[in-house]
Amino acid sequence: LLAHADRLAARCGRPIEIAAVSARERGRDRGVDLSGISWEENAEALAENPGVDVVVELIGGAEGPARALVEKALSAGKPVVTANKALLALHGARLDSLSAENNAPLRFEAAVAGGIPIIKALREGLVGNDVSRISGILNGTCNYILSTMEAEGRSFENVLAEAQKLGYAEADPAFDISGADTAHKLAILARLGFGAAVDFDALHVEGITRITPQDITFARELGYRIKLLGIAEEKPGGIAVRVHPALVRRGSPIAEVFGVMNAALVEAQPVDRMFFEGPGAGAGPTASAVLSDIADLARGITASASALVGGPSSVKPMRPMSEHEGEYYVRLRVLDQPGVMARITQALARAEVSLQSLIQRGRSPNGPVPIVMRTHEARESVMLSALAEIGGLDTVVEPPCLIRIEDG
Amino acid sequence: LLAHADRLAARCGRPIEIAAVSARERGRDRGVDLSGISWEENAEALAENPGVDVVVELIGGAEGPARALVEKALSAGKPVVTANKALLALHGARLDSLSAENNAPLRFEAAVAGGIPIIKALREGLVGNDVSRISGILNGTCNYILSTMEAEGRSFENVLAEAQKLGYAEADPAFDISGADTAHKLAILARLGFGAAVDFDALHVEGITRITPQDITFARELGYRIKLLGIAEEKPGGIAVRVHPALVRRGSPIAEVFGVMNAALVEAQPVDRMFFEGPGAGAGPTASAVLSDIADLARGITASASALVGGPSSVKPMRPMSEHEGEYYVRLRVLDQPGVMARITQALARAEVSLQSLIQRGRSPNGPVPIVMRTHEARESVMLSALAEIGGLDTVVEPPCLIRIEDG
Repeated sequence: LLAHADRLAARCGRPIEIAAVSARERGRDRGVDLSGISWEENAEALAENPGVDVVVELIGGAEGPARALVEKALSAGKPVVTANKALLALHGARLDSLSAENNAPLRFEAAVAGGIPIIKALREGLVGNDVSRISGILNGTCNYILSTMEAEGRSFENVLAEAQKLGYAEADPAFDISGADTAHKLAILARLGFGAAVDFDALHVEGITRITPQDITFARELGYRIKLLGIAEEKPGGIAVRVHPALVRRGSPIAEVFGVMNAALVEAQPVDRMFFEGPGAGAGPTASAVLSDIADLARGITASASALVGGPSSVKPMRPMSEHEGEYYVRLRVLDQPGVMARITQALARAEVSLQSLIQRGRSPNGPVPIVMRTHEARESVMLSALAEIGGLDTVVEPPCLIRIEDG
Repeated sequence: LLAHADRLAARCGRPIEIAAVSARERGRDRGVDLSGISWEENAEALAENPGVDVVVELIGGAEGPARALVEKALSAGKPVVTANKALLALHGARLDSLSAENNAPLRFEAAVAGGIPIIKALREGLVGNDVSRISGILNGTCNYILSTMEAEGRSFENVLAEAQKLGYAEADPAFDISGADTAHKLAILARLGFGAAVDFDALHVEGITRITPQDITFARELGYRIKLLGIAEEKPGGIAVRVHPALVRRGSPIAEVFGVMNAALVEAQPVDRMFFEGPGAGAGPTASAVLSDIADLARGITASASALVGGPSSVKPMRPMSEHEGEYYVRLRVLDQPGVMARITQALARAEVSLQSLIQRGRSPNGPVPIVMRTHEARESVMLSALAEIGGLDTVVEPPCLIRIEDG
């Protein structure tokens, strides 16, 4: 805003000025000179400041000062630009109402997939489309960990520790590696794409902590990579919204997204398939997305991001994960004894789950060996009960590791 | 517009109606019932029809009725939505002026890269960025031909003939395979990205007609694929805007775009790199893009596409192709005689072009054999004069085939 004020003014047809700033610590060195800019000790005061036309919230967190500031600003009729995915995922419906009641736009391009203009693409670029599926790599930390595990054959714990040192993962990484961050972003995309509220508590969410180098090696042998995906799709009976690691075929666009990059694949009619890839986090990409929202408001593009694609405010039912149908990869650790394979395959046969392949690698008489199975399409509920039975066998020495196989 | 009228109305906050239609043949079966819609024999009459709020031009061609309709509509202050890349590439500056003078928005999302919302991404999503480079696969016909040549080891002529039968290439394919179509689209992207008029006649444009299966095989051995790229980049001394086949490293996003898909890679600060891929042509993707422009106008997003990113109306100098610097792939056909290699390498050495590798495949004493060279970075003017000298050797039996090596 300061360094490219002239260019932005030319592009927007009016200057954009920083009216006031608030933050927890006034004195901290942020690498930018704020001395000429008015300071508010209390962030919420920005919502009441008559000199403020647009409130930009970059505090973070679903509650506390971020929520208070955004709600107050919208209530006061001020447009809000935010990068706060947790706030939107958990309180999106309420914020939408506040935005609509007070005719105050709510914009959040930076909340999902960093610099990729995916919000704008969904609500404007693809506005004439019927979205049937959105899938994405929405968390750079997880993608960095999985990419590095594959490239260097290292364990999850080992790569995570390095990522923390490098600043790619937080000191407390739970929010990223549990899939919760991906779920927040996916909930936002699903709400936009399907124009329906998403019950965040009904999302199926799994993280990447159980993925081993062995899984990555087996996946490669089968022609796949393992990625943490967020997937929202329209299915008979409702929209399915889920976050979990998945095997995606090597060579498909989403399988070729590495490191801290993010990506999104949108399937919609009449456009067919659209793929976006770009940096998912960091100061530059976030600034790019926040600036685009501010510039839109400056140009008079004032409609709210969510209201636009919402269509009639229909609520679509959420399809429970138990009804998911797809192919599965399953890794077991079993004692290398005669008859083990027979008991496992019988359990699957009774459940009418049919196998595409079954591999036992290495031999270790009476010791543990890995077995990897790939199924044909099966129903999640059936698969889980068959696996519960298999996991209960005394020759199966650790809980089965199940990873779904996805088109991308 | 007819099938999803309710959804569009909900998303745009107002209904969108077809006020009138014009086409060359009224009676043709277009798979849609136009009987209830007012008909204009003369397309230009739409520009004067007071019941028309927005003129949508899908006629095509840089001159004739398309140009007349668009100019008349803008002059009458009516917003125009067009998919006409030739018109924009050749008359963009004049249309921009008409648009600005009459306060009539000019929108053209469908003109470049079909369903990919790349125009919107450049002018809005990346508005806060400094674009340094745009490269893309912008012609589906060429990409289909090159992809199929590689996948099936077939010749250019053979695949072209099939593409014509399948409808992927026109009966007269010159416009696509010469690179002209890519050049039109690239000129539009460059004008948006750099906010400067592009002298279309100053573009360097090469097509794909000289690419052989041998080139594709050699490229693969070196770790590359051959793609027809449009590249616009900011360089010392001006913007370089060029269309030519290029070797791009396998595994890079742009090298993995196959068939009739289009793609664009944008390098900009602060966002870094952004990659877009989607269907580049066809009824569905074009409809998606045209609808997004119409919807924007219906929602009151009325600024012109080009005016927005233009910034100050500075004209940037175009950097001549002779100043291009990069690595080159060169294929020669030479008589297999002692001393041939020496004369070729001497010519390059005199020009101070240094080689990364030189491969002669097969032997055929005194008969023609292929030689493939890969250079280190060299200047285009120097490279061309060295190749002119090499091409003049009596042991070199056909003009050298030069393909530039690009990062993507």
